[in-house]
Amino acid sequence: MRILIIGATGTIGRAVTAVFAERHEILRAGRQSGELTVDARNPDSVKAMFEQAGKVDAVIMTAGGVHVGPLGAMTPEQFRIGLDDKLMGQVNVVLIGQHYVNDGGSFTLTSGIVSEQPIRQGVGMMATNRAIEGFVQSAASELGRDLRINVVSPSVLTESWEGYGPYFPGFEPVPASRVALAYQRSVEGGDSGQVYKVW
Amino acid sequence: MRILIIGATGTIGRAVTAVFAERHEILRAGRQSGELTVDARNPDSVKAMFEQAGKVDAVIMTAGGVHVGPLGAMTPEQFRIGLDDKLMGQVNVVLIGQHYVNDGGSFTLTSGIVSEQPIRQGVGMMATNRAIEGFVQSAASELGRDLRINVVSPSVLTESWEGYGPYFPGFEPVPASRVALAYQRSVEGGDSGQVYKVW
Repeated sequence: MRILIIGATGTIGRAVTAVFAERHEILRAGRQSGELTVDARNPDSVKAMFEQAGKVDAVIMTAGGVHVGPLGAMTPEQFRIGLDDKLMGQVNVVLIGQHYVNDGGSFTLTSGIVSEQPIRQGVGMMATNRAIEGFVQSAASELGRDLRINVVSPSVLTESWEGYGPYFPGFEPVPASRVALAYQRSVEGGDSGQVYKVW
Repeated sequence: MRILIIGATGTIGRAVTAVFAERHEILRAGRQSGELTVDARNPDSVKAMFEQAGKVDAVIMTAGGVHVGPLGAMTPEQFRIGLDDKLMGQVNVVLIGQHYVNDGGSFTLTSGIVSEQPIRQGVGMMATNRAIEGFVQSAASELGRDLRINVVSPSVLTESWEGYGPYFPGFEPVPASRVALAYQRSVEGGDSGQVYKVW
């Protein structure tokens, strides 16, 4: 398969690349690095990336930021960061990419444990992750040409625990190598509309 | 109680007003009608509304549009309508309104059955409603001063069946008067972080 990984140089992206690289052709995309550069927040940039990539069989998206901060001081602009970046970045990739991916191909997006389990200061994160999973569940029944779509919901990564651990008291971190397996299930399996929880 | 109802002239808004009007003081707000006019998509407009309203004990929000259309032809701009209007309208009201509502007061927002049950052409609706419920669940644990927040998830309204019925094959419509009871539970009860499903 020809697999496009957006966010390939991130912690999850590198682990996912390692899982697929031996048996598949990988195209790496990122905001500043990779064979292709893309700012997924911008639909024109997403379109240019797909034009440049040519036909692919699978698209994996592991990129996207969210604002973390206390509700009492949160501004609408801060709340919007997750919507504009993590949610619309992935939505742009699917809405535009559905016209470029080969028949029977797949999209695999990324949400996170805070979709279901709230943390303090995570209001924007929960709304964003919940929307991503809703988008995937609904899109699964409407994509044509046997296209599939799933989403991976990881817990905090072991590799990111030093920075993010304080926001996740009592949560169990998971290694990126374990999270990467869920992307493999999505790409090489037959599921659609699934949320793979890696917690 | 002093209750601010945003979207008071809509089908749900009128039914909610009828439930509360006898025993409470009602302030009605809407885009074009009511004692207060507001465009909830615009944070400055929301701030001006709260400044004008003065202190209130409960805020109910029943307004907000979403784009409905096939995934295969959906543009990022169309998908964004629900985020900008139904989601951010309600988020703006809570982020700004938390500083104006009296201690022990409440917010009651509106999502919809498509949060959990997908319909064709409802990709934007599902993502938007799911995000609203995630926001409410997360905000419930962070609001200070004993403020509460809940969300009502109605099925299609009996009153709107003629226009929307074709999008909801086999769904059971519910009368707005029944939906209004869920807002009463939220405002006069003690719950926080609840999703009241009226299906």
